[in-house]
Amino acid sequence: MSCCVFLLSFTPRPDDIVAAAARLCYSDVSAVDLLEDESQERKSSLLRHIRRSGHFSPFEHASFTFAIDGLSRIASHQLVRHRIASYSQQSQRYVEMRGPDAITPPSIGEVPALKRKFEEAAQTAHSLYTELIEHGVPKEDARYILPHGWSTRLVMTMNARELHHFFTLRLCRRAQWEIRDLARGMLIAVRSVAPRLFEEAGPSCLLTGRCEESSPCGRPFSSLEELLDEKSV
Amino acid sequence: MSCCVFLLSFTPRPDDIVAAAARLCYSDVSAVDLLEDESQERKSSLLRHIRRSGHFSPFEHASFTFAIDGLSRIASHQLVRHRIASYSQQSQRYVEMRGPDAITPPSIGEVPALKRKFEEAAQTAHSLYTELIEHGVPKEDARYILPHGWSTRLVMTMNARELHHFFTLRLCRRAQWEIRDLARGMLIAVRSVAPRLFEEAGPSCLLTGRCEESSPCGRPFSSLEELLDEKSV
Amino acid sequence: MSCCVFLLSFTPRPDDIVAAAARLCYSDVSAVDLLEDESQERKSSLLRHIRRSGHFSPFEHASFTFAIDGLSRIASHQLVRHRIASYSQQSQRYVEMRGPDAITPPSIGEVPALKRKFEEAAQTAHSLYTELIEHGVPKEDARYILPHGWSTRLVMTMNARELHHFFTLRLCRRAQWEIRDLARGMLIAVRSVAPRLFEEAGPSCLLTGRCEESSPCGRPFSSLEELLDEKSV
Amino acid sequence: MSCCVFLLSFTPRPDDIVAAAARLCYSDVSAVDLLEDESQERKSSLLRHIRRSGHFSPFEHASFTFAIDGLSRIASHQLVRHRIASYSQQSQRYVEMRGPDAITPPSIGEVPALKRKFEEAAQTAHSLYTELIEHGVPKEDARYILPHGWSTRLVMTMNARELHHFFTLRLCRRAQWEIRDLARGMLIAVRSVAPRLFEEAGPSCLLTGRCEESSPCGRPFSSLEELLDEKSV
Repeated sequence: MSCCVFLLSFTPRPDDIVAAAARLCYSDVSAVDLLEDESQERKSSLLRHIRRSGHFSPFEHASFTFAIDGLSRIASHQLVRHRIASYSQQSQRYVEMRGPDAITPPSIGEVPALKRKFEEAAQTAHSLYTELIEHGVPKEDARYILPHGWSTRLVMTMNARELHHFFTLRLCRRAQWEIRDLARGMLIAVRSVAPRLFEEAGPSCLLTGRCEESSPCGRPFSSLEELLDEKSV
Repeated sequence: MSCCVFLLSFTPRPDDIVAAAARLCYSDVSAVDLLEDESQERKSSLLRHIRRSGHFSPFEHASFTFAIDGLSRIASHQLVRHRIASYSQQSQRYVEMRGPDAITPPSIGEVPALKRKFEEAAQTAHSLYTELIEHGVPKEDARYILPHGWSTRLVMTMNARELHHFFTLRLCRRAQWEIRDLARGMLIAVRSVAPRLFEEAGPSCLLTGRCEESSPCGRPFSSLEELLDEKSV
Repeated sequence: MSCCVFLLSFTPRPDDIVAAAARLCYSDVSAVDLLEDESQERKSSLLRHIRRSGHFSPFEHASFTFAIDGLSRIASHQLVRHRIASYSQQSQRYVEMRGPDAITPPSIGEVPALKRKFEEAAQTAHSLYTELIEHGVPKEDARYILPHGWSTRLVMTMNARELHHFFTLRLCRRAQWEIRDLARGMLIAVRSVAPRLFEEAGPSCLLTGRCEESSPCGRPFSSLEELLDEKSV
Repeated sequence: MSCCVFLLSFTPRPDDIVAAAARLCYSDVSAVDLLEDESQERKSSLLRHIRRSGHFSPFEHASFTFAIDGLSRIASHQLVRHRIASYSQQSQRYVEMRGPDAITPPSIGEVPALKRKFEEAAQTAHSLYTELIEHGVPKEDARYILPHGWSTRLVMTMNARELHHFFTLRLCRRAQWEIRDLARGMLIAVRSVAPRLFEEAGPSCLLTGRCEESSPCGRPFSSLEELLDEKSV
């Protein structure tokens, strides 16, 4: 039931670009030369050092663009609150919503009686949506009756610094399940192309052993593997 | 049916602060002195000059904080796409939605038969929402079935530069009706406390006589009064 | 020798506005009502809770505008790297630099022989600047020979969230001395008008007892008073 | 005498990524499919349409990272005022400035007598810098006497939307000569890899035939070729 996230594009050699930018600050050499001049070993330890000291600004030079499909508009409303990012989202003003397409939360989907009612209600709402359009109501107004959990599509770009911030907030067990699933998919995708930038990432329990939440979940992550393997739904 | 917007707080003496900041760039005097040293006349013409030349950066020094009630979550989703602003929004994860509280678009509300169906459907959705919660579904999941047009509350802060940008986009006749209403209420509110900063504001048809839209509405505004008097709903 | 910072304007009732915005997220009441409805006690503990949990977003609703005079252009170059802020700065393209006006760092000013040489060199550079202008060189080009430590003026606006971030970075003993002095002056100024928002502020040694720097100074602050009383120069 | 700019990295297929993101808003198809599904012709006209209507947000999905060497710290101070961008800059706190390395403005460099005085003064300032360091003054304080026109190095990342904004401001004949040179080098670099995104770019005289400056230069650009061929120095 979780959304589909696909890494559409990204800054090539993200680990190398960030390492060269970081070294530039302390060198009297052009970044053009620094880009070619680094052993893998040294790069790893430099990037680890930056991550741990929190001096994340060179991480901004690597950007990642995702295609996201099947996310609810509830989750997309949360998502676009991250302001240091770029979004293009399917418009319900211009695109007609054809069939019933609401995301069913697992807490509902796992109980057959509730699941049936939820799906019937989504179907009924969509029928009224269609009827309103047939009566001349603009799509942008008819959608007011569609469930908030309706599915949407986005293209989103974030740089590696904001991604780390996003992962810290949204991979916490207290985050909303749908955006947690999205974050997990994103982390898996970026680790495959920028393994050093994202060698470590996630909520503070995992990174520092400390929880900053006012109501801790009581189940701190003990490893990144545990986090990545989990299904929140 | 339109939302309620109230100017909760703002930088005192907004016109003066912006004028002092603008003059600082071209003076060898402290802003502390510039703040006290200006005739009203001169200030007006300075601020008009800045607005017309598009060199808006001093306008950022004046901030405005609004309380917004009764906006649909459709419109709030659009609103928070303005990234150079600050938002606090009522959480549907934590706050239970008590009674039916969907915004009815005028195109539906003006047709009694459609209005009745819309309101019944909103009522039905809310009943299922309540039922789901009674069955132990978390509020944050039950809300997936609530209409997207459900009402929300926000506190929002924007500076005068971003407000001008917002007014240019969102007071256009092609903007969505609900966010246009909000923008109109905001403009009326800020004009009452910062008359020089917002002496002129609105879509490009009003400011420059030219339309930048790909599908022009064909009815350019001829005066700010026309824009402010209008009811879009 | 340190710069002069003056709080030019700020959002009235900053503590109250932030508290109302924070409560809105968890209430079914308008912010207009929340603004009036709070005991001082409760407000203090709410704001302390937000600060400590790091959920700083409501702090963005309070903005503070400073006049800064006598800061070197070295320090202003660092300062404007804080991107979530607004700046108006005296232009060396348009304003002629009349007399010698370089900031003398204490490490130089405290050694009479070095001080004399430094001041003579600044004087010589300014004489050449004047001579170049007399020969028809534009002010914007003549300034290339002025010392980088030349004095400048700014108006700067930051919200309380970014201010906390600024104080964490720039009140650290490892920060550059001039920007530390500026930060200290700013903190004193905002504490006088927003005592709850800035009840605690500063580097991580003070806030959490932990140092995040890669080369710790070895002298963690033990109290805010110690930090505020200090003269870094 | 102008700085050296090199395109270090960029989002692959920038034209295609932006076109796919733009189409997503109006389609019921995943961006993954849109990315593959477009004729060159259609893409060109779509991107031209976006540029001309000013609805630039999809342009944010393409990022460009530059290595910049030999820019004065005067120009870098202006440059970092563009807040929607990422910067890593060579630090004068940590890197010792070895030989005289001030940028000589053409208005000075073209007059032999002035050029000689300028270079001697830069040499004298650097000698004092070295002497101060030998006397135990930290590098970060000794630099106060170096000319403001001293050379620096940066890595900078901007997305295509901000680049267009940058080109509009900084390719104007009224912009400072050094940042104009930089902007011209950047535009040439991005046009070679994203010809459709940057088919048209530059000041408003070139794009719209209108000048927004308060003191127009009187020499509007008639073609992009004219702009690109020009030497401002």
